[in-house]
Amino acid sequence: MSETGVNEAGVGVLGFGTVGTGVVEGLLRRGDLMAARTNVRLALRGVADLDLARDRGLAVAPDLLTRDAAALVDDPRVDVVAELIGGTGAARELTLRALALGKPVVTANKALLAAHGAELFDAARRHETGIFFEASVGGGVPVVRALQEGLIANRFDRICGILNGTCNYVLTRMEAEEAPFEAVLSAAQGEGFAEADPALDIDGHDTVHKACILATLAHGGAVSPDAVPVEGIRGISPLDLAYAAEFGYRIKLLAHIRRDGDEIEIGVGPTLVPRGHLLASVQGVFNAILVAGDQVGETLYYGRGAGRNATASAVLADLADAASRRFTRGPWMNSGFRGDAPVRLRNPGEVRARHYLRLALQDRPGVLARVAGVLGEHGICIAAVVQKSAAREAPVPVVILTHEARARDLRAALERIDAMECVGAPTVHYAIEDFAPASG
Amino acid sequence: MSETGVNEAGVGVLGFGTVGTGVVEGLLRRGDLMAARTNVRLALRGVADLDLARDRGLAVAPDLLTRDAAALVDDPRVDVVAELIGGTGAARELTLRALALGKPVVTANKALLAAHGAELFDAARRHETGIFFEASVGGGVPVVRALQEGLIANRFDRICGILNGTCNYVLTRMEAEEAPFEAVLSAAQGEGFAEADPALDIDGHDTVHKACILATLAHGGAVSPDAVPVEGIRGISPLDLAYAAEFGYRIKLLAHIRRDGDEIEIGVGPTLVPRGHLLASVQGVFNAILVAGDQVGETLYYGRGAGRNATASAVLADLADAASRRFTRGPWMNSGFRGDAPVRLRNPGEVRARHYLRLALQDRPGVLARVAGVLGEHGICIAAVVQKSAAREAPVPVVILTHEARARDLRAALERIDAMECVGAPTVHYAIEDFAPASG
Repeated sequence: MSETGVNEAGVGVLGFGTVGTGVVEGLLRRGDLMAARTNVRLALRGVADLDLARDRGLAVAPDLLTRDAAALVDDPRVDVVAELIGGTGAARELTLRALALGKPVVTANKALLAAHGAELFDAARRHETGIFFEASVGGGVPVVRALQEGLIANRFDRICGILNGTCNYVLTRMEAEEAPFEAVLSAAQGEGFAEADPALDIDGHDTVHKACILATLAHGGAVSPDAVPVEGIRGISPLDLAYAAEFGYRIKLLAHIRRDGDEIEIGVGPTLVPRGHLLASVQGVFNAILVAGDQVGETLYYGRGAGRNATASAVLADLADAASRRFTRGPWMNSGFRGDAPVRLRNPGEVRARHYLRLALQDRPGVLARVAGVLGEHGICIAAVVQKSAAREAPVPVVILTHEARARDLRAALERIDAMECVGAPTVHYAIEDFAPASG
Repeated sequence: MSETGVNEAGVGVLGFGTVGTGVVEGLLRRGDLMAARTNVRLALRGVADLDLARDRGLAVAPDLLTRDAAALVDDPRVDVVAELIGGTGAARELTLRALALGKPVVTANKALLAAHGAELFDAARRHETGIFFEASVGGGVPVVRALQEGLIANRFDRICGILNGTCNYVLTRMEAEEAPFEAVLSAAQGEGFAEADPALDIDGHDTVHKACILATLAHGGAVSPDAVPVEGIRGISPLDLAYAAEFGYRIKLLAHIRRDGDEIEIGVGPTLVPRGHLLASVQGVFNAILVAGDQVGETLYYGRGAGRNATASAVLADLADAASRRFTRGPWMNSGFRGDAPVRLRNPGEVRARHYLRLALQDRPGVLARVAGVLGEHGICIAAVVQKSAAREAPVPVVILTHEARARDLRAALERIDAMECVGAPTVHYAIEDFAPASG
C-alpha cells in the first residue's frame, strides 16, 4: 500500500485498562487498514496508566508507556487524546487539559459526559476543537453518529433504548430460566457479565447517563442525571416476566426520551414491550436504540453495548474521525448542537403512559372492587385484569393493565391502595410501551 | 439564532420528482435547524426538471426553476449538487459534469452507482471531490455512514439485508393473509407500495444494486451487478411461508455478503430466517441491514427503506456533510476505500448453505427414498422432512430441509430430481440462514 498522501496523527491513550488495551491493540493491528480507508495514519505516541506492570498481552514498546498522563497530553507529537480512564476526576482534568491545547478528545466515559458535558463541550468550542464520544452509548453501535450526522435533518420525536447490557442479560436469563433476580445476578457476576459492585448497572444509573447523552444529542441542551426519574431491575420477579408474557409483552429496562411540542419527557425504568416489537427481541448483553425522527420515521440501531473490542471499535472510529478533521480544521459538528432551543423537561408527574400493576391482595370478596374503585377515583381506567384462582396462600397476586394515565395520578392512587389493610405488599408497577404500529 | 460563523453553501437540485420535492421542502423548512446544528447554511440555488408545470405543493420561487440541468450544475453559486433524476443516462453525465468542476454530488441513485460506481468514484478522486450516497441503500437509515465511518476499524465478516421495501411488504402481507403473490402484488400496486412495473423490485434487481454498493463499501472494490446470483419473490407461495413457519422460520428476500478469507460471497434470494431473529421481525416496507464486523460483532440498522421524507432525510444529511467538508477541503472518506485488496468473488457454485426444498412428488411408495438417494449421491444430507398425509390430489408437496451443501451440488441433484417422472413440478429451493447464536 502506498502511503502517498497519507497524513499522520499522533494518538495519546490515557488509561490502559480493558478498553485502552483494545484500542492500543487496534492501533497496532489495524493501522494499515484504517490509513488506507481514511488517508490518515494513527500513530501511537504513548499510553498512560498508573499500573504499568500488569501484562496486557500486547507488545508495546516500553518507551511508549508512562505514568505521567499530563505530560502525554502535553506532548506536541500527540494530536488526538483518547480518554479511557473512567470516572469524573482525573478524566475531567485531563480532558480539559487536552481541549485547552486545542487537541480533540475521544472518550467512552458516559459518567463524565453526563456530569460535566456542558463544561467540556463549552471548553471544546472555546478552543475550537471537539469531543468524540461514540463509545459512550451503545458500545460499538454508531448511534451517536446517526443522531449527529445521518439524521441531522430530523427533529427527534422519540428515542427508546436498551442501553445496559448487564441488565438485559439478567432479564433475558431470568425469563429463560424462570429464575429470581438474585440468583441470575450472582451467576452473571461469576461469568463476568456483571460487575462485583453491580449497582451502577442494575439500579439504572448507567442507563441514565446514556439517556442524558442521547437527550443532549437529540435536543441540544444538557440534561442533568439528577433530573431523570430512574428505577432499576432489582424489583422484577419471574412472576412479572410470566404475567407480562401472558399479556404478550416482555419486560426490558428502557430509557425513553419523548418530545411533545417544546417539552421533553425522559425516564429510565422497567417497561413492558410488545413481544413482536424489535426491542423485545434484543437478547443477552446486546443493546438497541430506537430513534424516531419526524422525517425518517422509526429507525433502530442494534449491537453489543459493551466489551473490549466493540468499545474499541467505536473509539478507533472516533480517533480516525478526530484525526481527519484535525487536518481539515473544519467546524466541529460534534461539539453539541448550538442553535436548538434549550431542553425543557416535562414534570415527571405529568408523563402519561399505560401501566402494569401487580398487587398483593387478600383473597376476600370485594377487595378487587375496592382497588378498582380507588383507581377510578384517580381517573385511571382498567384495560385488563388477571387473578389466578388456585392461590395456596394469601396474599394473591393480581395483575392489572391500565389505560393511559398520568404518573402523578397513578402515584396518588397507589399510595392509597398500598395503605389498605387488604393489600399485603407494595404494588409493583411498570410502564407499558405499546409503540405506534408501524404502518405500511 | 445568530448566524455568526455560519457559512453558506449553494445547492443545485437535479430532478423535481418525489425525492427531489422532499429535499427542496426540507431545504426550505429545515434550513435554520440544520444551520444551527452544522454551522453551514444550505441555500437552494435552483431546481432542474423537464416538467416544471406540475404542482408539487411547494412555494418555490419561479426563478429557481429551470429546465437546463447542465447550466445549474455549472452555476458558480452552486457548491453541491443533488442528483435525484434516477436512471443511468442524464444522471451519469450530470454527475460527471459536477465532479469535473470539483463539486461534490449527493445521490440516491443505486442503479447509477451499481453500474458506473467505479467510473464516478474515480472521477471524484481525480477532481478531489466526493460522492455522497447515504440515500442509495436503506432509505433514511444511516447505514452507509456506519460502514464508512462508525465501523471503520472493522473487517466485515457478514452483511445480510432486507433492502427492498416492496418485496418485504408483499411477503409480510402474503404471510398475514395467506394470500398468493399475484393478489398481494396487485393490492400493493393499488396502494402505492409497488410500482406499476414492479420487476425491478420484485425480481430482486434493486436489491442487487444495493448489495453491490454495500459490498464495495465493505470490501473496497467494485462488484458488478451481473456477477450477483439473484432470485426474486415471484416463485414464493403461501405454502412455502406456511412450511417455513412450521420449521420456525420466516422467508425474507435477503441480500447476503460474506467474507471468507480473501473471498467474498454475494447473492440475493428468498431466504429462511429464524423467527426469533431480528431480521424476521422486520415487517412491511421496512428495511434492515445486519452488519457483522470482526471487532464490533453483530450490529443491525433498521428503518424505512424508501419514501419521500425518509429518503430526503438521508439526502439532506449528505448535503450538510458535503457542504461542511467542502469548506474544510479535507480528504474524502467517502470516495471508496482505496487501499483494500480488490474484491475476489467466490464462484457462486462453491457457496455453502442449508436449503429448504419443496418438491412436488407423486404419492407412491419409494418416491421419497429415490429423491433422498439422489441428494445423498451429491453429498447432501437431509435434516428434516415434512409430508402431509391427507393429500387430495397428486403431486404431493414434500418439504426437505438439508444440512449445509454446496450450491453446485444442490443444482446438480435438483436437475436429476426434477427430471424424474415421479416429480410433478420444478423443485422450489431457498437458502436457510440460521445465523450464529448471539453469545452472552
